[in-house]
Amino acid sequence: MTFQEKLAIYADLILSVGLNVKPGENIQIKFDSQNLELVRLIVKRAYQMGAAHIVYDFQDDEMNLARYQHLNDDLLDDFPSVVADFKLNLYKAGYLQLSLVSPNPDLLKQVESARVGRINKARSKSMQESMRYGMENHSKWVVAAASSKDWAKAVFPTLPEEEAISLLWENIFTATRVTMKDPKEAWLKHDARLKEYQSYLNQKRYCKLHFVSELTDLTVGLVEGHIWNGGSEKTVSGEAFMSNMPVEEVWTMPNTIEVNGYVTMTKPLIVSGKLVSTLKLVFKHGEVVEYESDQPDTIKLLLESDSGAKRLGEVALVSIDSPIEKTGIHFKNTLFDENAASHLAFGQAYLDNIEDGNIMSLEERKERGMNHSSIHKDFMVGNKEMAVYGVTNDGQEEAIMIKGQWVI
Amino acid sequence: MTFQEKLAIYADLILSVGLNVKPGENIQIKFDSQNLELVRLIVKRAYQMGAAHIVYDFQDDEMNLARYQHLNDDLLDDFPSVVADFKLNLYKAGYLQLSLVSPNPDLLKQVESARVGRINKARSKSMQESMRYGMENHSKWVVAAASSKDWAKAVFPTLPEEEAISLLWENIFTATRVTMKDPKEAWLKHDARLKEYQSYLNQKRYCKLHFVSELTDLTVGLVEGHIWNGGSEKTVSGEAFMSNMPVEEVWTMPNTIEVNGYVTMTKPLIVSGKLVSTLKLVFKHGEVVEYESDQPDTIKLLLESDSGAKRLGEVALVSIDSPIEKTGIHFKNTLFDENAASHLAFGQAYLDNIEDGNIMSLEERKERGMNHSSIHKDFMVGNKEMAVYGVTNDGQEEAIMIKGQWVI
Repeated sequence: MTFQEKLAIYADLILSVGLNVKPGENIQIKFDSQNLELVRLIVKRAYQMGAAHIVYDFQDDEMNLARYQHLNDDLLDDFPSVVADFKLNLYKAGYLQLSLVSPNPDLLKQVESARVGRINKARSKSMQESMRYGMENHSKWVVAAASSKDWAKAVFPTLPEEEAISLLWENIFTATRVTMKDPKEAWLKHDARLKEYQSYLNQKRYCKLHFVSELTDLTVGLVEGHIWNGGSEKTVSGEAFMSNMPVEEVWTMPNTIEVNGYVTMTKPLIVSGKLVSTLKLVFKHGEVVEYESDQPDTIKLLLESDSGAKRLGEVALVSIDSPIEKTGIHFKNTLFDENAASHLAFGQAYLDNIEDGNIMSLEERKERGMNHSSIHKDFMVGNKEMAVYGVTNDGQEEAIMIKGQWVI
Repeated sequence: MTFQEKLAIYADLILSVGLNVKPGENIQIKFDSQNLELVRLIVKRAYQMGAAHIVYDFQDDEMNLARYQHLNDDLLDDFPSVVADFKLNLYKAGYLQLSLVSPNPDLLKQVESARVGRINKARSKSMQESMRYGMENHSKWVVAAASSKDWAKAVFPTLPEEEAISLLWENIFTATRVTMKDPKEAWLKHDARLKEYQSYLNQKRYCKLHFVSELTDLTVGLVEGHIWNGGSEKTVSGEAFMSNMPVEEVWTMPNTIEVNGYVTMTKPLIVSGKLVSTLKLVFKHGEVVEYESDQPDTIKLLLESDSGAKRLGEVALVSIDSPIEKTGIHFKNTLFDENAASHLAFGQAYLDNIEDGNIMSLEERKERGMNHSSIHKDFMVGNKEMAVYGVTNDGQEEAIMIKGQWVI
């Protein structure tokens, strides 16, 4: 297959398997100026599939950087409500949300952390309602990746530029099953496999998970009525979609006050445009009470975003024999790295991870232990040493993963 | 000067002379994917000048074309109100409006006129309120141009691509005074010259204009209390801006029911993506009652957009010794071609072309003879044969232009 053919299949998979576009639906596409070739294929295909209207959320590294570098100091804490309202109104009008990510891990390296933190905080605070609305699955949404110059350079620093971009594309195509014989069929089978883990865990109704390795000893309480998800999801009105491509994880909702012990991050992470290589956290009653990191300022700003930022909103299990982990590549991007290792997330929880979440009031959700925040930030904790146990109501521990792999 | 230096001066002129950006102001930039280099300079410079937030209105020829080609037939008459509302809300929130145009005259050549017409009509109808709001000068706004592959190819069809793009840039730089010794000073002087014509015409208070050439014999009544504008304008709150760069015209408001005679278009025009080469119109009591064109379907759709589309909203005088006309180039773009020849416009009138327009009710404006429409489309009627006379209250004709040049 030529690159063009693969790209066309990828565009089609994003729209059919990911967004599950139906005639008459509207789409917002967030993309980077380096993704134009893919976006053009997606837009054309979307209209052919019957899409009604497409809104572009254009991003450009240089323009973004200009804002972080040159925005006047007295404007750092402002974000325009007219823009936040538009995003929320798009959700409310039922726009499907497609995000194409092309991370540039080093983009903000030279910018003072405090500036980055204030700009991001103003934005996430202003966007909190639309983010929550999105995470409540009122609309179908998908996050997928596109290779780009800067991302490829960060992943393959020793390769010539063109070669690095191509190699990253090949890895994206492999991880998203583009190069398989029947990609849609392959996604169906993969989804069915994730659904098996999901239903096993849903039947077990563990009250806690226990993560153990040389670096970690952490218990994560699960909310009463928690639901494990894996692979495809459903909107509140019952339409299927695949929120991440690739996806290898099975995830549920931690109880915001029942996380205790210590945990060590096992893969580097980009936070506010900075590469965080080491992070060790101590939790007590659900809250981070101590941490060590090579980027303490960046972590401090993240955890102080709001009252929910230092508590967990997601716990996810990924086998270390995931095809992404097998590539041996560190993608320096959450979408890929979170599907290479078990992980936790600070901040906002997903509403579809709790029974009847969509008919509960905000107060009921909080009482049940659901976390709320203007941020949602995954960090990887799994590795080939890690065991994960499910703790039953009577305190028994049953193995779910041993040496990083499923044993159920 | 290198190209980079000229482009940086151009970016600065657009922001300082055009938008007159002040610290804390917000900007929306409409641009084409081919303009990224210029947009990046503008964004960086805008933040350095103290801009608070920048919203991108991204356009791409291929994506636009995909919509015209592939949008389902039953969706052609729909435009999402959530998008129209956002545009209006940006105006209401005081966002300055910068449009960078890179026309692609042949883009929609292969698309059925009826499809183009229906899609455009749905959009302009939905956008009518925000368009009117914009034309009422609540915010500062500017339209400027950027060279691009397809535009350059259309203007210089025989040149190699790179050469055509460069030559078009050079002509844009010349027309916008980028290459002059002190570009800002040059704009001040030019503005002062246009203001002289403006105040002469404002003192004269002609009740009609009479356009005469071999091809045209048209009288255009002016509304009572009409105001001539030329060069820089003021928002309703009194802030200066330059709405077009380049600008060579002095313009005012025709009376919507007092246009009589015939007029022949003197330069080709792009309408809904189609090149219209010939157009002859007969007006009676302000309305087009007959027309001949090589693109009758396209003109029909334009004039039938709404009840104001076949009446005039602007009359503008441009000397044929304008630097743009002197290049001898047909730019196939209204921004340039309208500043090379006297012109008229179908559709919506500008509120600042009538005294106290901003405190009149819509009914009062209509009674005065101001035209309202969801479209505003300029077409060129001046040439080196044309005379323009001002008709005084007692029926005397005084020469304003002879052989296409100012005689006042």
